[in-house]
Amino acid sequence: MKKISIILCCLLGWQSQAQNTQISPDGNVKVTFELNPSGKPFYKIWYKNQEVIKQSYMGLELKNTTDLIADFKVIKEEKSTFDETWQPVWGEESHIRNHYNELLVSLHQKTSDRFMNIRFRVYNDGVGFRYEFPEQKHLTYFTVVEEWTEFAMTGDHTAWWIVGDYDTQEYDYTESKLSQIRLLNQGAINHNASQTPFSRTGVQTSLMMKTDSGLYINLHEAALVDYSCMHLNLNDSNFVFQSHLTPDATGDKAHLQAPCHTPWRTIMVSDDARNILASRLILNLNDPCAYEDTSWIKPVKYIGVWWEMISGKSSWAYTDELPSIQLDKVDYTKLKTNGKHAANNQNVRKYIDFAAQHGFDQVLVEGWNVGWEDWFGHKKDYVFDFVTPYPDFDLKALNEYAHSKGVKLMMHHETSSSVRNYERHMHKAYQLMNDYGYNAVKSGYVGDIVPRGEHHYGQWLVNHYLYAVTEAAKYKIMVNAHEAVRPTGLCRTYPNLIGNESARGTEFESFGGNKPFHTTVLPFTRLQGGPMDYTPGIFETQIWNVNPDNGSYARSTLAKQLGLYLTMYSPLQMAADLPENYSKYLDAFQFIKDVPVDWQKSIYLEAEPGRYITVARKDKHSNDWYIGCTANENGHISKLKLNFLDKNKKYEATIYADAKNAHYKNNPKAYTITKRKVDANTTLTLVAKEGGGYAVSIKEIKK
Amino acid sequence: MKKISIILCCLLGWQSQAQNTQISPDGNVKVTFELNPSGKPFYKIWYKNQEVIKQSYMGLELKNTTDLIADFKVIKEEKSTFDETWQPVWGEESHIRNHYNELLVSLHQKTSDRFMNIRFRVYNDGVGFRYEFPEQKHLTYFTVVEEWTEFAMTGDHTAWWIVGDYDTQEYDYTESKLSQIRLLNQGAINHNASQTPFSRTGVQTSLMMKTDSGLYINLHEAALVDYSCMHLNLNDSNFVFQSHLTPDATGDKAHLQAPCHTPWRTIMVSDDARNILASRLILNLNDPCAYEDTSWIKPVKYIGVWWEMISGKSSWAYTDELPSIQLDKVDYTKLKTNGKHAANNQNVRKYIDFAAQHGFDQVLVEGWNVGWEDWFGHKKDYVFDFVTPYPDFDLKALNEYAHSKGVKLMMHHETSSSVRNYERHMHKAYQLMNDYGYNAVKSGYVGDIVPRGEHHYGQWLVNHYLYAVTEAAKYKIMVNAHEAVRPTGLCRTYPNLIGNESARGTEFESFGGNKPFHTTVLPFTRLQGGPMDYTPGIFETQIWNVNPDNGSYARSTLAKQLGLYLTMYSPLQMAADLPENYSKYLDAFQFIKDVPVDWQKSIYLEAEPGRYITVARKDKHSNDWYIGCTANENGHISKLKLNFLDKNKKYEATIYADAKNAHYKNNPKAYTITKRKVDANTTLTLVAKEGGGYAVSIKEIKK
Repeated sequence: MKKISIILCCLLGWQSQAQNTQISPDGNVKVTFELNPSGKPFYKIWYKNQEVIKQSYMGLELKNTTDLIADFKVIKEEKSTFDETWQPVWGEESHIRNHYNELLVSLHQKTSDRFMNIRFRVYNDGVGFRYEFPEQKHLTYFTVVEEWTEFAMTGDHTAWWIVGDYDTQEYDYTESKLSQIRLLNQGAINHNASQTPFSRTGVQTSLMMKTDSGLYINLHEAALVDYSCMHLNLNDSNFVFQSHLTPDATGDKAHLQAPCHTPWRTIMVSDDARNILASRLILNLNDPCAYEDTSWIKPVKYIGVWWEMISGKSSWAYTDELPSIQLDKVDYTKLKTNGKHAANNQNVRKYIDFAAQHGFDQVLVEGWNVGWEDWFGHKKDYVFDFVTPYPDFDLKALNEYAHSKGVKLMMHHETSSSVRNYERHMHKAYQLMNDYGYNAVKSGYVGDIVPRGEHHYGQWLVNHYLYAVTEAAKYKIMVNAHEAVRPTGLCRTYPNLIGNESARGTEFESFGGNKPFHTTVLPFTRLQGGPMDYTPGIFETQIWNVNPDNGSYARSTLAKQLGLYLTMYSPLQMAADLPENYSKYLDAFQFIKDVPVDWQKSIYLEAEPGRYITVARKDKHSNDWYIGCTANENGHISKLKLNFLDKNKKYEATIYADAKNAHYKNNPKAYTITKRKVDANTTLTLVAKEGGGYAVSIKEIKK
Repeated sequence: MKKISIILCCLLGWQSQAQNTQISPDGNVKVTFELNPSGKPFYKIWYKNQEVIKQSYMGLELKNTTDLIADFKVIKEEKSTFDETWQPVWGEESHIRNHYNELLVSLHQKTSDRFMNIRFRVYNDGVGFRYEFPEQKHLTYFTVVEEWTEFAMTGDHTAWWIVGDYDTQEYDYTESKLSQIRLLNQGAINHNASQTPFSRTGVQTSLMMKTDSGLYINLHEAALVDYSCMHLNLNDSNFVFQSHLTPDATGDKAHLQAPCHTPWRTIMVSDDARNILASRLILNLNDPCAYEDTSWIKPVKYIGVWWEMISGKSSWAYTDELPSIQLDKVDYTKLKTNGKHAANNQNVRKYIDFAAQHGFDQVLVEGWNVGWEDWFGHKKDYVFDFVTPYPDFDLKALNEYAHSKGVKLMMHHETSSSVRNYERHMHKAYQLMNDYGYNAVKSGYVGDIVPRGEHHYGQWLVNHYLYAVTEAAKYKIMVNAHEAVRPTGLCRTYPNLIGNESARGTEFESFGGNKPFHTTVLPFTRLQGGPMDYTPGIFETQIWNVNPDNGSYARSTLAKQLGLYLTMYSPLQMAADLPENYSKYLDAFQFIKDVPVDWQKSIYLEAEPGRYITVARKDKHSNDWYIGCTANENGHISKLKLNFLDKNKKYEATIYADAKNAHYKNNPKAYTITKRKVDANTTLTLVAKEGGGYAVSIKEIKK
């Protein structure tokens, strides 16, 4: 189903000052474009006649040539409409409507005789725009010193922000007024393996805000390809955000060759927070799927030899005998194991057995390959080869064992951010995966980038991450990249990018904990660009019960952990805890076994950033529905009308909820499981306790 | 034949100041090692009791930790002798003797509890030493801020130097006193596509010097592996050279992981300049061949579709129609050719025919692959794919045509210094070579390095160049890398590295000319580390006869061009001129056809840097000898005793000499060819005119 109608109008020709306006299909969102008397472009955005973005200048500062900032004339303005419904390979919905009105402004820079277009797409839930550089004589290769795109806020909004940083997003969110960002900046920086904060008022996108009048505004970008990641730097005297790109090793921000364009800069807006979560604006601004055959891309539910290392109980490394490892010289068979190496044959078989018993698709095994003894913090070039297993990991036998039980192993490629080394070994590594029957890889980019001076979010790495994904596609391999740049909807074009981390994940519950409201923020921010491998499902939230030396605990009840399988949408969902912990709570574990990872439809029932999120999703392959809720430290009471259920069907609901006395701090594992018949007329009242949540499966009762 | 005897002695133990001495096998070279009262290591070198290197400190400045400069104690000193004769895969000689006395000093840095060794190898023609970092607890990963190795000269020597630069060696040499380097520095810098001079008194190695007392001294390095290239920075108040390493993008000089060592720092010394040329010290300091099978490595004599582009007559590019090229979007079949594209089917066949007719092994074809329209100067990432030919180059048919005539095509991989892109495409490119029957590639690194901020001579690139060579070996491919770091004898270990450029080659004769003395310097400097693809054989030295728009001319007579096939030793020799120019001088061309590219034995008959070089070489596969001479702008008269000939054999000599009125400026193509019988008792008097030279073939008269 594809309907495209293009209406060309308003060919304004050469004039000293041009103005034009485009509105969203429902008329609620309006954008205007103008040039000031110096020929500097600017735009404004309104939502239901409220100003959302005040006069905001646009342009790029270039290296060793005239900037693309002023001296512009409008030579053409074209309007068009686009309406299409497309089917993602996987997603929150089986059909996505892409409906927008477009305004394409063609600009000419008089003195330099250069051309630049600005293309706006206006959706019911926001606006995307990008700079385009057509093929032309006087602009071919150019270097961006900085992109100067403004996002002028109308007031001192409340924001849910993390510190602007060239190398990590693994920060806890802070909720504050814009005016408080400077004050709170230093306190918002926790240690990370690689981090480069750039400003006291720098924040990352996607940035979620709320105005005093109740508008929800989200700033992000879409389709970040061969350009550097955009952060935002706030001028807190006037609440104007400036785009701030990630530099390369020499300080330049991007290197472009016309014809080309920047990523989309996105402004989502609504007076209902649920619309921000339901928005498909970011995906829609990305190109359609680049692959002809996507039959090999499948959502995955998995467990892993992982949490026992994260909790400190076990180790990735095989030995403690050497001060450092040189892969081309070491002979592991002559070294003593440290006795804590988790990726050993016996232990991996235990996980495989558990996965097979409970219907998981895959078992991630980290620490299977040689080099983990000194993989971290040395900017080591030849740190891993991605193909050689430790002596106690029988690559062939374990894969055969897994396959015999209907389970796959999931590959792990920690790169230690040594990306040249990864690219050198990538093809052999992918080939090995093909040879042994792996079809998904979790990759990682921990630590400072090699080549030195480059950053995780610079153009060099942005290019690399996508290279890793498109090369993997040639081997029909799905990629879940951790510590890579946060996603910008590229999974539409490259759906084998089935996950990213790119935020503070569950692992930090073992490193001191995430704020209790964390998962009520992430769907408004990090998840806007694509799914996150958040790795929920920690039942033993008190980590000292796994490793007595670890005093940390998850800021979550057990029931909330179940709710996350709904609220943290991902086609790749882990049950992150240890098999023995699930064995203690098999009744609750049933929900994780039941919950699908691919959906026909999703309905955000309740949402308020930093407070709570409740979502209902319909299984892609049945008539069953699932509901999940996450709440902050204050808990939340839901009254859910189930009118989304099929009026002609009956259902049985199983409700996994916090017990009355549950609390994330002192009583996290107190939960109740109740069953009841429900239908489209039912209203459910459900309670998430402090730091709690709930999960509900609603299964069709077949006649 | 392998004789190794190790004599351990002088276990000095802990003491506040240690001194030890090692001498060369013939007793002429002496090195001493000491610590000063602060525990700073230093060394001195003598030759026949003359001081060559005055007290010179040694050490390394490290990042964020105690430097390896002072606070050392000697814990052990070991002496040993080594004597072995080995057979290179190709070379100036079929057997090379590696005979040295070694002094290994084990040092302990007290406060930091770290260990460092300094290993000296003392040869009859000089000294090599390196720093070694054994496996230890308190020194694993470390970053070198600078290596502080001194080479303290005894006076204001005469030097033949080029400007110290992180990115190019393509400078003309300057002959001056050390004290004049600062004054002459700026004038010695000509434009290059990528250049980064670092100091007014910075010079490159190998550096050739002559003392007032007639000693010849050469400073260089051997076995540069995974470290950055060493330049020298002169303190011209005391004539002390400081090592100066090439920085990475962040300014650091090298990143090391113990156990490891630096390259060898080499000091060659003799009172006879011929010994410098005959020295095998650099090769001997390299590791033995790393490959088991070297049967696929063969010296190559070749012509190329090249000089017509260098002279400006033809172009690498196929079209002039587009302002820039995006390889993934352009369709060349829809573009008009510029009519000057040399790598077209018809023209390449002409070269193949010529090669077959005259017995050349290979035909290099540059500009065969898509992307040349804007390959240069843009730091373009995806600049070439190395596998897609232009529409007018039929990859399959041309290779088949060549093979049918007993000729191979030679591959060309210009990387435009976009090394990530090269590594991404390298394996497919090598595979394509295998598929079509190529076995040698000329690679190029023109322009600034991508990743940006890295330099041609930094550790990152040093690692890359060797990676390209060792990966090529997996495909049995020989590599001739242009614009790569200058060689340091690695061809012993990796003999498929059959050539490098890494200096100002013949191409500059078309870009304004090389100084007439250029080829009397290069063997003393650039060639110390390994062969150069100098591309001699320009018969039409007046380039305007090739391209009327080019006013340049070679500072050489035609006869000297023949002499270069001897004086510029290489297993890879090009006949660089156009077939039509050779057709005009077929009698002289006979020498190029005759001259071998691999040798049993080489005897330097005469040598004085900057003045003249005359060498006799015996064919590896016959009893024939060849002599070549190159002279500077003043010419040279040789009286050559042929007592190296077999006393029991008779020979016929063919002498290709400058005519009496020849002169590189006004009468370069005046030559004479004479034949005469010679034997071991013959003395030949031969004259090289101004900027001239000569060549002689001495063929055994078989009974």
